[in-house]
Amino acid sequence: MSSLQEQLFKKLEEKEQRMIDIRRHLHQHPELSFNEVETARYIQDFYKELDVDVLTDVGGGHAVVVDIKGDRPGRTIGIRADFDALPINEETELEFASQNEGIMHACGHDAHTAYMLILAESLAELKSELAGTVRVIHQHAEEVPPGGAKGIVESGVLDNLDEVYGIHVFPFVDLGHIELHEKESYAGRSNFDITIQGKGGHAAIPQTANDALVAGASLVMQLQTVVSRRMDPLEAVVVTVGAFEAPGGYNVIQDKVTLRGTARYLNEDSRVPVYNEIKKLVDGVVAGYGVEVDLDYKYDYPVLYNYPEQTQAIREILTKQEGTYFDTVTEGKPLSGSEDFAYYLTKTPGNFYIVGAKPEGVETPYPNHHPKFDVNEKALLICAKSMGDIVINRLEK
Amino acid sequence: MSSLQEQLFKKLEEKEQRMIDIRRHLHQHPELSFNEVETARYIQDFYKELDVDVLTDVGGGHAVVVDIKGDRPGRTIGIRADFDALPINEETELEFASQNEGIMHACGHDAHTAYMLILAESLAELKSELAGTVRVIHQHAEEVPPGGAKGIVESGVLDNLDEVYGIHVFPFVDLGHIELHEKESYAGRSNFDITIQGKGGHAAIPQTANDALVAGASLVMQLQTVVSRRMDPLEAVVVTVGAFEAPGGYNVIQDKVTLRGTARYLNEDSRVPVYNEIKKLVDGVVAGYGVEVDLDYKYDYPVLYNYPEQTQAIREILTKQEGTYFDTVTEGKPLSGSEDFAYYLTKTPGNFYIVGAKPEGVETPYPNHHPKFDVNEKALLICAKSMGDIVINRLEK
Amino acid sequence: MSSLQEQLFKKLEEKEQRMIDIRRHLHQHPELSFNEVETARYIQDFYKELDVDVLTDVGGGHAVVVDIKGDRPGRTIGIRADFDALPINEETELEFASQNEGIMHACGHDAHTAYMLILAESLAELKSELAGTVRVIHQHAEEVPPGGAKGIVESGVLDNLDEVYGIHVFPFVDLGHIELHEKESYAGRSNFDITIQGKGGHAAIPQTANDALVAGASLVMQLQTVVSRRMDPLEAVVVTVGAFEAPGGYNVIQDKVTLRGTARYLNEDSRVPVYNEIKKLVDGVVAGYGVEVDLDYKYDYPVLYNYPEQTQAIREILTKQEGTYFDTVTEGKPLSGSEDFAYYLTKTPGNFYIVGAKPEGVETPYPNHHPKFDVNEKALLICAKSMGDIVINRLEK
Amino acid sequence: MSSLQEQLFKKLEEKEQRMIDIRRHLHQHPELSFNEVETARYIQDFYKELDVDVLTDVGGGHAVVVDIKGDRPGRTIGIRADFDALPINEETELEFASQNEGIMHACGHDAHTAYMLILAESLAELKSELAGTVRVIHQHAEEVPPGGAKGIVESGVLDNLDEVYGIHVFPFVDLGHIELHEKESYAGRSNFDITIQGKGGHAAIPQTANDALVAGASLVMQLQTVVSRRMDPLEAVVVTVGAFEAPGGYNVIQDKVTLRGTARYLNEDSRVPVYNEIKKLVDGVVAGYGVEVDLDYKYDYPVLYNYPEQTQAIREILTKQEGTYFDTVTEGKPLSGSEDFAYYLTKTPGNFYIVGAKPEGVETPYPNHHPKFDVNEKALLICAKSMGDIVINRLEK
Repeated sequence: MSSLQEQLFKKLEEKEQRMIDIRRHLHQHPELSFNEVETARYIQDFYKELDVDVLTDVGGGHAVVVDIKGDRPGRTIGIRADFDALPINEETELEFASQNEGIMHACGHDAHTAYMLILAESLAELKSELAGTVRVIHQHAEEVPPGGAKGIVESGVLDNLDEVYGIHVFPFVDLGHIELHEKESYAGRSNFDITIQGKGGHAAIPQTANDALVAGASLVMQLQTVVSRRMDPLEAVVVTVGAFEAPGGYNVIQDKVTLRGTARYLNEDSRVPVYNEIKKLVDGVVAGYGVEVDLDYKYDYPVLYNYPEQTQAIREILTKQEGTYFDTVTEGKPLSGSEDFAYYLTKTPGNFYIVGAKPEGVETPYPNHHPKFDVNEKALLICAKSMGDIVINRLEK
Repeated sequence: MSSLQEQLFKKLEEKEQRMIDIRRHLHQHPELSFNEVETARYIQDFYKELDVDVLTDVGGGHAVVVDIKGDRPGRTIGIRADFDALPINEETELEFASQNEGIMHACGHDAHTAYMLILAESLAELKSELAGTVRVIHQHAEEVPPGGAKGIVESGVLDNLDEVYGIHVFPFVDLGHIELHEKESYAGRSNFDITIQGKGGHAAIPQTANDALVAGASLVMQLQTVVSRRMDPLEAVVVTVGAFEAPGGYNVIQDKVTLRGTARYLNEDSRVPVYNEIKKLVDGVVAGYGVEVDLDYKYDYPVLYNYPEQTQAIREILTKQEGTYFDTVTEGKPLSGSEDFAYYLTKTPGNFYIVGAKPEGVETPYPNHHPKFDVNEKALLICAKSMGDIVINRLEK
Repeated sequence: MSSLQEQLFKKLEEKEQRMIDIRRHLHQHPELSFNEVETARYIQDFYKELDVDVLTDVGGGHAVVVDIKGDRPGRTIGIRADFDALPINEETELEFASQNEGIMHACGHDAHTAYMLILAESLAELKSELAGTVRVIHQHAEEVPPGGAKGIVESGVLDNLDEVYGIHVFPFVDLGHIELHEKESYAGRSNFDITIQGKGGHAAIPQTANDALVAGASLVMQLQTVVSRRMDPLEAVVVTVGAFEAPGGYNVIQDKVTLRGTARYLNEDSRVPVYNEIKKLVDGVVAGYGVEVDLDYKYDYPVLYNYPEQTQAIREILTKQEGTYFDTVTEGKPLSGSEDFAYYLTKTPGNFYIVGAKPEGVETPYPNHHPKFDVNEKALLICAKSMGDIVINRLEK
Repeated sequence: MSSLQEQLFKKLEEKEQRMIDIRRHLHQHPELSFNEVETARYIQDFYKELDVDVLTDVGGGHAVVVDIKGDRPGRTIGIRADFDALPINEETELEFASQNEGIMHACGHDAHTAYMLILAESLAELKSELAGTVRVIHQHAEEVPPGGAKGIVESGVLDNLDEVYGIHVFPFVDLGHIELHEKESYAGRSNFDITIQGKGGHAAIPQTANDALVAGASLVMQLQTVVSRRMDPLEAVVVTVGAFEAPGGYNVIQDKVTLRGTARYLNEDSRVPVYNEIKKLVDGVVAGYGVEVDLDYKYDYPVLYNYPEQTQAIREILTKQEGTYFDTVTEGKPLSGSEDFAYYLTKTPGNFYIVGAKPEGVETPYPNHHPKFDVNEKALLICAKSMGDIVINRLEK
């Protein structure tokens, strides 16, 4: 173990309780995406006494970007933690439960920010031994499209970064496990609204109406062929119609129905073809049923692609520590969820990995975005150590 | 022209304004089906001074049944007028618009009752010349299944009737026209609610959910085959799914959807087979999609069958008067609407005919059940004379 | 009974055996539609000695048109019998079974022609008492679209006709019954071929192919909505896909499939709308599936419309004879079959009626076009008498 | 480079022309699966003079299994080459084209056998230096389910094997490339026949028939949901209906239709669930359409799973030789085709890899199973050297 790593790990261990306290403070004061005013101020205040460069209100939001410049020459490595919360009414019985009604850190961003602040402080204290620059990106608005990451990338924060890394804590991965994904790891996403305008009428005289409900049902059935017939089976495309809105009574033919749904894919090359196929089927319903259809299709977060080189690098870094501050490195299957860290990786090589945070004594933890969601706070030190280890290694690659 | 008919017509002509006044009074004081307390009292009061037998609260509702017994022997003929109103907020600008907010005579039952009262009074005044008995049935609750007619029939009111007749005024049939239908004339009706219970889930992990929305869409498409493949094309069966309720967002797979709809048919023999075929398809979705389905299927008003003999009889009676108090008798195509007079005709021969009531100076009148619905009050005298003529003829067949 | 009718009926009775002999001769020598050379010659020969005007090779085929001119002035009435046979291998064990292999009179046209010849001969013998002209139309090619009737009409044969009548014998109507239809009586018909060209491929790589089979299945399901949603339920529209040709193995995605089917309707006004709706759905599949579709749609025989006036006239004529040479006149429901006599009725008022011809001792007779089809020869005299009675009545209307 | 490997490679180089000659001989004399009598005899003859143990007629077919026992102790490694041909009429213009009409080596099994014989001979000549036993498996009937591999496994040939390896030559992989797959590599396969028995009838009277064609079309559409909704998107499931057999005319409703198709999956865990979901949908059609359905479902070759340990081992062995006798080792995506070598790997760890064999000067080669299929004979030496290198390495692991 290098001397720098030893020093860093020692500092982090000593500061573990502060990490937890910060996490609890943030948990009590959650703020919604794009409105994280107090959270951003808290972060800025944290850095006030440290010898670092701080940029505020970055990327069209409240992001805070901090450069920790080592005294020795080296590379520039970005590390990111997101800090926004969700419009969920907390139902945990934690002492430090949310004090902002209807808002909750139900996705662990409080934990991300807490470990990151302490890691940043520790690295800043070790500046004299650091080679190169650590760029700490405290990101706003991960939860709401278009996502804070997009603004960060567009603002140029990543322009001279060599690599970028991020972590997500997950309560359904065991504490002590670090899960890696290589290549396509989180699904890309597009959402759509489809409004079908037919012509209403009396249920008993269909020939004078144009039944939008039947046109909608036919479209739903035909949309199944996007996945079953039109896309590469290896690209794990999913098309779900999540809503079919045609409320009404027994005796009236619907004049308008609304469908709403999402498409997922594990290959960015599928993004446009999936849209094209949905568009073709919509056009087919227009032609076949004489209805007007409004298709509102929104490309959303891209596929999150973890670079093989960086993944292999951190696999090696982490594997060396198996059995020390954590138990084991595992390899995960691609995830169907989406994550705006994907934008960083369209610009800069890197990896986004998972730190297990299953609460103690729990068999089936509450999932992310659940009002009873919680994380094991012992995961914070694992986050800080693993990310710290990665950073000091990659600065000197 | 018989002397009795002459006398009757003269009386009706003299009382035309009273008919109109009664109609306006009723129009101002509409009451919902099964709640027609004041209307029933008004009718009872009307008969107080007349030498007739009155039965009240008949058929499980507020129906009033009045027997006018002629001095001469003869048959017993029933004539029916319904008196309930609709849960519609009137939007006409009539002086005598509804005073009961949210309730409106938007189907002409006020006109039916008005002509019937005056016709009954006039016939009562001519008792000495009448042969047999006229049974006047003021019926409640035509608009709401199971319909007042069902109770009337079950109560025995029709048990010793020889024939029964009824009228509906329609604003989209020209004033001066009387429209006859023979045999199957109004559609039979069944309504259904279908609740499909699958298993909700995340839009991106369909294999762990059971998508009720897709099961519902498939059922809608398959239900088209009831009409297209399974029923006699000559029976004019219609199956309409009028509602598909699956509201929601982009990212959630529906756990439950509700369909709601109606079946129509011009042959009572289709009633059960239509149900059977819908039930089979529902069972098919249960088997094919592993969902639970609750099918709530309600048989409703039967097909209204106008007896050829009685239809021919009134065709002859009315045709003789073409060009006098009205212009012409026409023959109509079957109607897809339903009418609980159909129950009377399952018990007793008769006919239900249409008296044109298009308002003056109107090209496209508002249809029944529209908040601006109105009828031409000149139709009332036509109703009274035609029905009166039929009655005195058929009493002595 | 008029003297003319008496004389005619007497003649027909005397010639009954000759009718039967002619029918058997024709049955032994059937010829296919548009190829009825010997049959036409037989008919011409029959008329050689008679004092009538004969036109041959009429209407673009082998039709024979014969005018029998009465000595008294009167109207001109057409009566038609068809004479072509079917490409069916006879399986009856009749002594007079077909001698032309693979060809059979399996639709009763032999009976039609036999009674018609004897009726014509008898009328010709009564010329001195006839008022007006009887035009006997021996028509070719009823079985094969576009049908001989079309050519007959186009050739002008009906130009100065006042009325036209025809008969079909049916083995599933009891002997002694004459069945009348009024207004829309036989369905109009259109046939279609739909070829869907996608792109073949390996069953395991659907994304590189374009599955014509799935496009075809979707079209079949969507075509159900033509009847269920788009046409008037009272017009008894039927759309049947009778063939879906996509033969193949397990592992290949179809590049081309062929559908074949028919549309029926009881209202000529439905002809074009049915086509339009099928065309729209085909266009929808083109748009939605990116396939090429060739829709070959052929309008065929129109709806056969029996005129109310003529129907009422023959109803009265025939009813007078109930219980004499036949038992009863019945009224039939519309038939889903098609008949090219419909063309005559697009030009000239008239009626096409059914003479029951159920073979003796048979419970369930073989239907028309069956290799074991047969008719009761006692029906021939009923055909001849009923049609003769109609003709002599309508000549003098 | 070890001395043994040097000697082996030298021998193989010297015998390259013999390999080619053998391949051409086999190509001229192809035999169908389970009928490879002459081929098996040719192989047996080849080994006659060699000091090896030969088993014939193994596994319920004509397989030949040869043990080459080294003088030194070691492990037992199996290597397999298949030798059956296809029912294809060869359309190449090769001098050594097939002399057996309608039969062709269109999948490269001639190349597999040729390199394997020479490799086996060479290894036998080096017995004194070999550690352990090389078991050479000349397998029959790879092309036809249930596949010769199944019989080989059941016969016990693999019972004491430590590892097993196989090669497939592919013309669409560049010469000089060796393509590796790890874990799930070739799809598992099940084939099905579905016969739907309804009730035929006249196209115009659907209510008296039960349209099997519409039931079939509905089933095809519903089968799309197996992939789109019911299986894990990561398991690359494909369900293809490759045939829809309902030939016929315009006017007849189908009484019976036959569907035929295949299911593919990259995870053996999907095998039974895919069947279950298809079965459910079939049951749904039975219930919903009142048809009888016969589902004949055949589990076929399993998913071919290349073991990570063995894959990594040969990756290392081969990578060391990059740029010598071949150019490069690449990693391939899973293949949708199926291969009965999968059975070996359900029993014994190992790997099945691809040797590029694109013909010279060809841009787009003809694919396997094409009548103009050909391979580059330079690939034979690459097959022999790579497999030889693997064998001598793994014998001494």
